[in-house]
Amino acid sequence: MKQMEEMILREGVVLPGEILKVGSFLNQNIDTTLLGQMAEEIARLFEGQGVTKILTIEASGIAIAAAAGIAMGVPVLFAKKHKTSNVDGSVYSTVVHSFTHNEDYHVVVSRDYLSSSDKVLLVDDFLANGKALAGLMDLCDQAGAELAGIAIAIEKCFTGAGDRLREQGIKLESLAMIESMSEDGITFRS
Amino acid sequence: MKQMEEMILREGVVLPGEILKVGSFLNQNIDTTLLGQMAEEIARLFEGQGVTKILTIEASGIAIAAAAGIAMGVPVLFAKKHKTSNVDGSVYSTVVHSFTHNEDYHVVVSRDYLSSSDKVLLVDDFLANGKALAGLMDLCDQAGAELAGIAIAIEKCFTGAGDRLREQGIKLESLAMIESMSEDGITFRS
Repeated sequence: MKQMEEMILREGVVLPGEILKVGSFLNQNIDTTLLGQMAEEIARLFEGQGVTKILTIEASGIAIAAAAGIAMGVPVLFAKKHKTSNVDGSVYSTVVHSFTHNEDYHVVVSRDYLSSSDKVLLVDDFLANGKALAGLMDLCDQAGAELAGIAIAIEKCFTGAGDRLREQGIKLESLAMIESMSEDGITFRS
Repeated sequence: MKQMEEMILREGVVLPGEILKVGSFLNQNIDTTLLGQMAEEIARLFEGQGVTKILTIEASGIAIAAAAGIAMGVPVLFAKKHKTSNVDGSVYSTVVHSFTHNEDYHVVVSRDYLSSSDKVLLVDDFLANGKALAGLMDLCDQAGAELAGIAIAIEKCFTGAGDRLREQGIKLESLAMIESMSEDGITFRS
């Protein structure tokens, strides 16, 4: 998606440790013109796929998921993060490892809101190592829900995690695909 | 807002401790038809007020703020919660007490994204005791930003916190105003 790539080139800051800072337009301060365009593009990419629900993870996926949900006319569910395993039987729960904070956290959704009749589109801001997505896919599995696909704002292609998902036959669409990045510049997959 | 009141009556569950559970349509599973209507109503209520930015707090305010930001054509900023005071000089920071979890947490926004040239609309899902809003207002004060007003999905009028803000001359608009609630029923302010 051209507008996303242009925004990354203009506003993104590459930091050591393969970190791309996009807080000025995507995951703290949100450019809502771009957000609206992203939502329309996600709706276009998954039109006719029978999506009944969007699932994301708090906090930075919520804005993208909400905008896409409005554009697609489907409800949005967000999984919550807990630092402890203190969860009861009313939820589906899984464990995700955060490399950023070097800790495990529990991710839960209420059993009331995800079921075997759902066809789920996963939405998140970044795809790097794929650990958060694996957690969301596990929650869908536990609910017996079908995976319609995955929509990501920015994929770090150089980790290989996105291509491994595609090789499994999953419909993964990323609005910007970063092939390589350094302080000298960013290259997108064409 | 009629659609919000109807949804609360149909889906809301009143729990002991003056808790209203709205997870099925507002703050975990999100009804995006209602969300779109809420965004349009917030845009209508604050039209012509010169709003340059929407400020909310993670996580459950983000969806409403994002939808309103798209409807109003203004950027959305969300304040982040930290359990520790381990924040550096690049952020505005304040302390909010959570009655739900009975603990203090730090709320921060980057100094890069809020300034004295901003006229800010605060958006959140609930107004109960007003502590989260007071924190957001403090962040605006620190930035020298002007407060345009406050938009809330559900106000618990019986706490008096909303009326105290109105008495200060603040333009506070709540899409549903609950005058009283118990397991026997919910009464809205007309």
